[in-house]
Amino acid sequence: MAERLVLYLWKYDQEKLDDFSEILRDLKKNIHYCKQCFNISENGLCAICSDNRRDQETICVVEEPLDIIALEKTRRMHGLYHVLGGTINSPTDKNSPLKIKELLARLKKEKISEVIIATNPTTEGEATALYLARFIKPLNIKTTRLARGLPTGGDIEYADEATLGGAIEGRKKI
Amino acid sequence: MAERLVLYLWKYDQEKLDDFSEILRDLKKNIHYCKQCFNISENGLCAICSDNRRDQETICVVEEPLDIIALEKTRRMHGLYHVLGGTINSPTDKNSPLKIKELLARLKKEKISEVIIATNPTTEGEATALYLARFIKPLNIKTTRLARGLPTGGDIEYADEATLGGAIEGRKKI
Repeated sequence: MAERLVLYLWKYDQEKLDDFSEILRDLKKNIHYCKQCFNISENGLCAICSDNRRDQETICVVEEPLDIIALEKTRRMHGLYHVLGGTINSPTDKNSPLKIKELLARLKKEKISEVIIATNPTTEGEATALYLARFIKPLNIKTTRLARGLPTGGDIEYADEATLGGAIEGRKKI
Repeated sequence: MAERLVLYLWKYDQEKLDDFSEILRDLKKNIHYCKQCFNISENGLCAICSDNRRDQETICVVEEPLDIIALEKTRRMHGLYHVLGGTINSPTDKNSPLKIKELLARLKKEKISEVIIATNPTTEGEATALYLARFIKPLNIKTTRLARGLPTGGDIEYADEATLGGAIEGRKKI
């Protein structure tokens, strides 16, 4: 990975390399966590939290900032986000607990109509989703989870049993 | 593939090889299509169609016999099957049309409460599902499709846009 990166950068002209070097130097100075959703941000509030055209009543809870990038690419998520910083069993940053308290504070303070829990479809992600749902339920906010099922372009013959079982359970009318 | 198979079989003892050789020789003589669902079968009716403990009111429509094996492994499918023999754009056997007429005959003759369309989550599979649904709708039978969504153990960050979009659309209350 390091070799690939060096060979790739080596083909850049000097000006680009200087720019890149400067950005790298100031990375920790310029990139912070959004104070509302804990996404990465260049300002106090990230680009999504400070965009008032977005649906302010929907919060999508994710494990990591990279999940936001993937969800944004679908163009089907129009609300705000909240980055937990890992799962209940494995917080990304050992020194910093998951941002659950901060999520609940947002839910109590603002008028939220739906929380979409978009933790990963893994054992840890599922456990975290259920753990969160227990706290959100008493607040009477609609809580949903991304669908489990067959990935687009996949093949039933080669699907694992858990995925296929989930796809049968979650089957939809057409 | 052929080399692997030879090296694998070469380690068998002679008796096993003789058995295997005999089975291969009689394959076309002993294996037929089930006359009801077109699954492979050693008799006129396959093991599933002739098992009267199975739910006789649910038919799951698949592209190929191998899909049945995958679905059976989940232990969540308790009804009967119907093998189409491919998709509308690509029948497996060019000389034999898809078994759609035969499916509709079963739906009209027997008391069926649900048809689960389990064609693959591909463009061809989707087109086939919609095509079938058009014929089944006038019969007033509940028609469902396996859920699209995130595969178990997957990662949102690496999920393709179509899969993630499907998972957002199909999100479920928890």
